[in-house]
Amino acid sequence: MTTKTATREPRDGVRAEVRAMARAAREAARRLSALPTAVKNAALLAAADRLASAAGRQALAAANAEDVAAAKAAGLAAPMVDRLTLTEARIAQMAAGLREVAALPDPVGETVKRWRRPTGLEVARVRIPLGVIAIIYEARPNVTADAAALCVKAGNAVLLKGGSEARRSNAAIGKLLVEAFTGAGVPAGAVQVIATADRAATEELLTLDEDIDLVIPRGGEGLIRFVAERSRIPVLKHYKGVCHVYVDRAANLDTAEAIVVNAKAQRPSTCNAMETLLVHAEIAPKALPRLASALRAKGVRLKGDARAASLAPGIERATEADFGQEYLDLVANVAVVDSLDAAMAHIARYGSSHTESIVTEDAEAAERFLREVQSSTVLHNASTRLADGFELGLGAEIGISTSKLHAFGPMGLEELTTTKFVVRGQGQLRA
Amino acid sequence: MTTKTATREPRDGVRAEVRAMARAAREAARRLSALPTAVKNAALLAAADRLASAAGRQALAAANAEDVAAAKAAGLAAPMVDRLTLTEARIAQMAAGLREVAALPDPVGETVKRWRRPTGLEVARVRIPLGVIAIIYEARPNVTADAAALCVKAGNAVLLKGGSEARRSNAAIGKLLVEAFTGAGVPAGAVQVIATADRAATEELLTLDEDIDLVIPRGGEGLIRFVAERSRIPVLKHYKGVCHVYVDRAANLDTAEAIVVNAKAQRPSTCNAMETLLVHAEIAPKALPRLASALRAKGVRLKGDARAASLAPGIERATEADFGQEYLDLVANVAVVDSLDAAMAHIARYGSSHTESIVTEDAEAAERFLREVQSSTVLHNASTRLADGFELGLGAEIGISTSKLHAFGPMGLEELTTTKFVVRGQGQLRA
Repeated sequence: MTTKTATREPRDGVRAEVRAMARAAREAARRLSALPTAVKNAALLAAADRLASAAGRQALAAANAEDVAAAKAAGLAAPMVDRLTLTEARIAQMAAGLREVAALPDPVGETVKRWRRPTGLEVARVRIPLGVIAIIYEARPNVTADAAALCVKAGNAVLLKGGSEARRSNAAIGKLLVEAFTGAGVPAGAVQVIATADRAATEELLTLDEDIDLVIPRGGEGLIRFVAERSRIPVLKHYKGVCHVYVDRAANLDTAEAIVVNAKAQRPSTCNAMETLLVHAEIAPKALPRLASALRAKGVRLKGDARAASLAPGIERATEADFGQEYLDLVANVAVVDSLDAAMAHIARYGSSHTESIVTEDAEAAERFLREVQSSTVLHNASTRLADGFELGLGAEIGISTSKLHAFGPMGLEELTTTKFVVRGQGQLRA
Repeated sequence: MTTKTATREPRDGVRAEVRAMARAAREAARRLSALPTAVKNAALLAAADRLASAAGRQALAAANAEDVAAAKAAGLAAPMVDRLTLTEARIAQMAAGLREVAALPDPVGETVKRWRRPTGLEVARVRIPLGVIAIIYEARPNVTADAAALCVKAGNAVLLKGGSEARRSNAAIGKLLVEAFTGAGVPAGAVQVIATADRAATEELLTLDEDIDLVIPRGGEGLIRFVAERSRIPVLKHYKGVCHVYVDRAANLDTAEAIVVNAKAQRPSTCNAMETLLVHAEIAPKALPRLASALRAKGVRLKGDARAASLAPGIERATEADFGQEYLDLVANVAVVDSLDAAMAHIARYGSSHTESIVTEDAEAAERFLREVQSSTVLHNASTRLADGFELGLGAEIGISTSKLHAFGPMGLEELTTTKFVVRGQGQLRA
């Protein structure tokens, strides 16, 4: 019993602290929602300067060195230590990111639509911030600055809970941001870093549906499932990306080869990398050997159905389960399909509604694919790797949603807002 | 143990049936998403004709008579029996509702935004259906037809689970709808009524996050909390409406009286009825006696703070808790505030972010109120009762969301869709 009490006490302290932070965020959110764009931009630029200043860089380096030393002592894998490490270049990148967000248009106050009712009522839908957003992420300290910038620019207060291995770095980044922000007139409480190794903090956070409007988990599937299963607050989920490139019978093979290689091999560890290549049966005898050889030249291991394996050498046989896999690696499935419809049926069955591309010179086939495939990004003659907030022109990206509610696909500043109805009357009543 | 097994068997049957229905809805949704507008409209008009035909009316009357007889035998309260009853006029209204939805513009396929990237990529955000929607509602059979029409028009498959007292009526409506819909080319599975008195059906439904994209509960707070607490699927919640009218110091008192009386007394049982009247201290000595007397003439009982009670006779003293109450009745709170800021602070503290109105001739005060109050509908010189999908011009309403994710305020056809990114390229790759 004593042990139980002893371990419960600090946890209760953490829980109370998280509740107080969420309440402070709610208070700050009200003032933040009315903050002029110029004040928010000045705050972001001041924060960039502060991170990039000699004192800022020194503070970050010192905190980060402690995190890195602890991580190494704990035997953390080398790639995780690498992601945790704040080099001078990464600090400069964080500062540049803050300046980029300052340069983006402010979504708050935008009139999305406006109309007049026969009664004379003027109705408008106007963008407003969501309120309070919690970001839960892994041990990548740069997310602290990036996510804070996007949330605040869209008028939201933000609670940042990063992986505990990065907690000293996150706290240091948070301190610099808050100093710069409050100096520029952004209310205290707008940005708060939860820097603890106690998992009770995250558990408590996910129950606070009165004070938090949205939770965005950023990281691997394990983290996302942990958050989605526990949260009483709406969650924008980002599950796996099982993305397809369909090479149609009317494809230009130069275009197809360039897109397929880029989609698979340019950065295979990302969610918008191609996992499965579909080739129309009419073009497969010519296309498949060429595409397979180009992929193999990039070190890609191929798994195929019987027809694909018979058309090109060195293709292993894929299992049914392989077609639902997100490899995130230099591995790809290949299947031969008899028609555009068969390609779309394959995508509907095995895909994850993330991103799919058709390569074809047949405009009609392209339009059918773009219309009928219900994934968050559908492309014609372009690489799946372009399904990204920055590449598509959203300016920056807070994540990619694979569920359809609120946002579907890459999420930028607009997706961190909602709309209210603003109604101007001259005494109108309900009849 | 035997009893347990005996009761579990039929429940397992119900659960399996619900799973099969959700799976069929998912299959139908894919085909439904590509259905031309003309086919959907023809189906809605055919369904209207069928409900309004002699055979249709007879089938509905017979099923409804059984429901009503059972409800009376079970001792259901008179207002609930009334809501359950399908009169000839109500059947005609359902048919008219289907025709109205047929006449609304189809949101599916609409290009919401379109831009060009420096690389030549053409990017568009295009509306697509959400997929499969479950509507959970009380014993109001008319919701069956209304909700089915809106969901199908927006290209979604729908599972309809109404209150068990109305299950025979709902099944009869569903049968007529499905006959008309499938006859017009809408896939079977697009509209399915779950007509059972077994609560296991709803419990099972709320776990099916693979096959259902959205749950919309329609009814009282108890039903909404039941759904929100159990659902693994995103829920569009509609909690209470604690709506305010703020009579500013620059209000025209004729306008104020008309709006306050309409907002409170035109239909007090609705979520957009006024629950609290706020009056600026400078105008209160003149305004409050007049407004109080006009409200009392409509039978409204008033509860006020000390200042309000001192300015007009017959105002009871309100408790702190009263100001957070949704009365849904001929009762209202009254408070005197010293400024526009105090009015907005009161609304932020006690309101439910539903609907608030300012009455004033001061354009600057009005614009501040419209900008800074973060409720789903904010009005100037108009009754809170106008916060409604039909009144605001959405054409029809599937509900009113008081949470900010996905939709905030009255929800029409657009809110039953999401957007995908459609990208047209000429071989663009990720650099």
